[in-house]
Amino acid sequence: MMLTDPSVKYRPFVAVDLPDRQWPSQRIESPPIWCSVDMRDGNQALIDPMDMERKRRFFAMLVELGFKQIEVGFPSASQIDFDYVRELIEQDLVPDDVTIQVLTQARPHLIERTFEALQGAKNAIVHVYNATDPMFRRVVFNVDKPECIKIATDATAQIRDLMAARPETHWTFQYSPELFTSTEMDFAVEIVEAVMATYGATAEKPMIVNLPATVEVATPNNYADQIEWFCRNINHRDRLIVSVHPHNDRGTGVAAAELAVMAGADRVEGTLFGNGERTGNVDIVTLAMNLYTQGVHPGLDFSNITPIMREVEYCNQLPVHPRHPYVGDLVFTAFSGSHQDAIKKGMSERRNHPEAVWDVPYLPIDPLDVGRSYEAVIRVNSQSGKGGVSYLLEEEHGIELPRRLSIEFSHVVQDVAERTGKEITSQMIFQAFADEYLEQTSPLALINHRLSSEADSPRVTLEAAIDQDGQRHTIAGAGNGPLAAFIKALAAHGVDAEIIDYHEHSRGQGSDAEAVAYVEVRLGEEAVFGVGIDESITSASMKAVISAVNRHRSTQAPAANVTAASLA
Amino acid sequence: MMLTDPSVKYRPFVAVDLPDRQWPSQRIESPPIWCSVDMRDGNQALIDPMDMERKRRFFAMLVELGFKQIEVGFPSASQIDFDYVRELIEQDLVPDDVTIQVLTQARPHLIERTFEALQGAKNAIVHVYNATDPMFRRVVFNVDKPECIKIATDATAQIRDLMAARPETHWTFQYSPELFTSTEMDFAVEIVEAVMATYGATAEKPMIVNLPATVEVATPNNYADQIEWFCRNINHRDRLIVSVHPHNDRGTGVAAAELAVMAGADRVEGTLFGNGERTGNVDIVTLAMNLYTQGVHPGLDFSNITPIMREVEYCNQLPVHPRHPYVGDLVFTAFSGSHQDAIKKGMSERRNHPEAVWDVPYLPIDPLDVGRSYEAVIRVNSQSGKGGVSYLLEEEHGIELPRRLSIEFSHVVQDVAERTGKEITSQMIFQAFADEYLEQTSPLALINHRLSSEADSPRVTLEAAIDQDGQRHTIAGAGNGPLAAFIKALAAHGVDAEIIDYHEHSRGQGSDAEAVAYVEVRLGEEAVFGVGIDESITSASMKAVISAVNRHRSTQAPAANVTAASLA
Repeated sequence: MMLTDPSVKYRPFVAVDLPDRQWPSQRIESPPIWCSVDMRDGNQALIDPMDMERKRRFFAMLVELGFKQIEVGFPSASQIDFDYVRELIEQDLVPDDVTIQVLTQARPHLIERTFEALQGAKNAIVHVYNATDPMFRRVVFNVDKPECIKIATDATAQIRDLMAARPETHWTFQYSPELFTSTEMDFAVEIVEAVMATYGATAEKPMIVNLPATVEVATPNNYADQIEWFCRNINHRDRLIVSVHPHNDRGTGVAAAELAVMAGADRVEGTLFGNGERTGNVDIVTLAMNLYTQGVHPGLDFSNITPIMREVEYCNQLPVHPRHPYVGDLVFTAFSGSHQDAIKKGMSERRNHPEAVWDVPYLPIDPLDVGRSYEAVIRVNSQSGKGGVSYLLEEEHGIELPRRLSIEFSHVVQDVAERTGKEITSQMIFQAFADEYLEQTSPLALINHRLSSEADSPRVTLEAAIDQDGQRHTIAGAGNGPLAAFIKALAAHGVDAEIIDYHEHSRGQGSDAEAVAYVEVRLGEEAVFGVGIDESITSASMKAVISAVNRHRSTQAPAANVTAASLA
Repeated sequence: MMLTDPSVKYRPFVAVDLPDRQWPSQRIESPPIWCSVDMRDGNQALIDPMDMERKRRFFAMLVELGFKQIEVGFPSASQIDFDYVRELIEQDLVPDDVTIQVLTQARPHLIERTFEALQGAKNAIVHVYNATDPMFRRVVFNVDKPECIKIATDATAQIRDLMAARPETHWTFQYSPELFTSTEMDFAVEIVEAVMATYGATAEKPMIVNLPATVEVATPNNYADQIEWFCRNINHRDRLIVSVHPHNDRGTGVAAAELAVMAGADRVEGTLFGNGERTGNVDIVTLAMNLYTQGVHPGLDFSNITPIMREVEYCNQLPVHPRHPYVGDLVFTAFSGSHQDAIKKGMSERRNHPEAVWDVPYLPIDPLDVGRSYEAVIRVNSQSGKGGVSYLLEEEHGIELPRRLSIEFSHVVQDVAERTGKEITSQMIFQAFADEYLEQTSPLALINHRLSSEADSPRVTLEAAIDQDGQRHTIAGAGNGPLAAFIKALAAHGVDAEIIDYHEHSRGQGSDAEAVAYVEVRLGEEAVFGVGIDESITSASMKAVISAVNRHRSTQAPAANVTAASLA
């Protein structure tokens, strides 16, 4: 054993004393208030944080899914967050029933700046936090308990007054004692009561207290004990909306949120598919679908979950794992023959009793409820998701699609799947790929080409014969390499193409080896993918350019316009 | 809302009645018995199940990590599993303190076949199961309760007798009432008691009863209630080793295992990083490290976790998510400035008190304990893991490493990191990449080349000038494309290289664009990567081949042997 003896280095979590806890006998019968923190906690944990375009797409998706509370950023800490909040407000992009939330540290100039960002908002939650955990008080901020409380109440007073001065906005106040789970419980209650008193929370005008598991440090029953203890010991519980904000350091964030709601929490902050700092925030999709399978409508719409996953993957530039609950490429697939057999019997039983409650072997949810299909369940490798399609093309046909092209092509396959209503075999996928990218020979086709170069010069001269609408043309160009020369030759012929991206790889080995080339080409206003396969790496890349040109013409222009005149 | 109203389609889980449950006040103070089911439950859920080579590697790794019980397959259902079990036994590959486990259905000829596979084993667990859930009894098997019990006890009697007839093996018997969590609890107790009686379990010769959450169907506290109820209601609890086997359909598999151990389970079946059917089995790595951070040694060694992740990714051909607890590329990274600042203060405090218990902001575990580094924690994007390295090379230098090459190169970077003990910047990574792949010009260097081809023929003729140890040579060859021609030219010059894999992509756009080519080349017995960058796609690919040749010579042969004679 090389692992250090942990008994001297780590201490067990000190549990709250609550032998008469009530939460283990509770059941969740209605959904909590959901608050997405994707655009704040999630965004700040991205290798490449969202730009404005990705922020816009993410917000629009969250609204579409039914979120009514969305933390959109940290405007006092980030100019792009500030600008984005201004855009939301000035362009009136927030529906009346949606409240935007912004985070701020408990510092006067940051709070001022936060209210500048929110000027003119219809509905807004101002979320202020400070760290209350003893180690943070001592090591990071060097404050004692009264000083810690004063930081919180000073900020609260400032926010209260700024809100009062801006009555055109419907305000909600939120306070987080950061690292709640590692704070002394009595101190957590003390500081929250001081904040409530300063703010003037009432049952009619409650405030949100958010109790984060900023770092997950214990089994999830401990979080539930803490939430129940807090709710039972705080004065004026009715003046609070109790919110939880679990992270997932121990892999139990979903459980922690569920047990905390059983223990009395009213509201959950989390993200789609669990993006967020380190191991992530709690995954709201899983929480919502867990409720759904217990007969409770979550109030969020994940009925077509695959495009949501794709959009989140695009915005976060992070993958969703193939085994992610309810959405991963593999979660509705049974590989084992005995599982497949049992599912078939259950499905058949269900067809006879479609009104019965859902009870099919190995399927905790009807895949149709999230826009997935029965076929995906019992067919190995025939998922129409890009994972399955890319896998099959690579494994069985040696085609390694670049990522953006794999997303484009998965739509092509989905069209085929929907049009035929049949199982999509690997052969059908390859045929769809060939039809779309390899076999369009009009208006242009490459007949042959000739290369020449001189030693001591990087310049290559290329002469190519192409067929254009049945007529043979010879085109010529020179450049640093064959592909550059080909682009020049096309330009001289009136086809202005610019290479945006280019990938090429071998397919097969030895004497059967071919090259597969992928290009993304700018043609006019459009970026178009093309693919070419040839024994020669240069011919493959030229064919790929031709493929893009033909695809552009066939999708962008009416066939009648595709003439030599329009090209040359 | 497009989601169907779930209240008519789904029913809530029927909880067991246990108001005086004791588990929520328990704490886990010693690790359970771990049983890896990677090679059975995990393997059967793979798109591409393990071949013999991957099985061998996986088993060796599990032994190395400290697993004492390993379910190695389902030999009666799979010939490759059968063959693998035979190899383990006949080649004596199982250490004396490790017990292999095999699964079988409760059918006479499959049990016979299972014992054939185990012939001569030193220690073996025979694991038999049948489905006890009411829907399975009715829909899938069409049996009533007595018939269901008879299936289990008939199989048990057969196994008992086969064991008795083979006293050379140290046998353990394991029974699973499959879908335990959706079985009536009193029936689960009834069938297990019948099996115990048939087998003749005693306190001295206990049997394992495995209580699977085959499909996760409720919040994890319900699983704990069921385990506690079962343990309290079964006769002769002391004759049983109670095992749990959680799946992760609701994303709470880790919590379910932890609460179940608090509720009395002695043993946990799971997999590394949670591979397994659908959403996976419970992740033993997370369970073990969760114990570790509470001061309890798990009895498994994850002190160098990154290579374990890589090995599992190789064997399963599935990725581990970048936010996976304790191991993901991003989990020891703080992107937020305030987090970085707090971590720095905590680390500095720790340097002053190295004997104190671990208490550093935002880090539930010391990254060093799992072979990760402090640098990785507080530097954005400079993780030495392949994710961070690949990310930086791509984002900042336009280098998109093929996956296998990215694994190889991450070792190069790790060496640099360990040698310098410093933060690795993006520039250092690129320099290491250039040193390793681009700038080795000995013994061979490409000076220039000339290409020619004829229209109407795919053949390309190539003449290249190369420098070999300071002497200029002209080599020539022809083939279907420039790369094939160059390989021929090298062969004529005495360098036998075969292209195994080839990738190429553009870097930059417009007039600055270059091509980056990656080749994996077979040279003698070795497969070697090479990389070339050039304005011309053909020159880049030739340079990549030269790079591989030079790297092969520099790593494989003493410098003195690298002469014209040894090459030509």
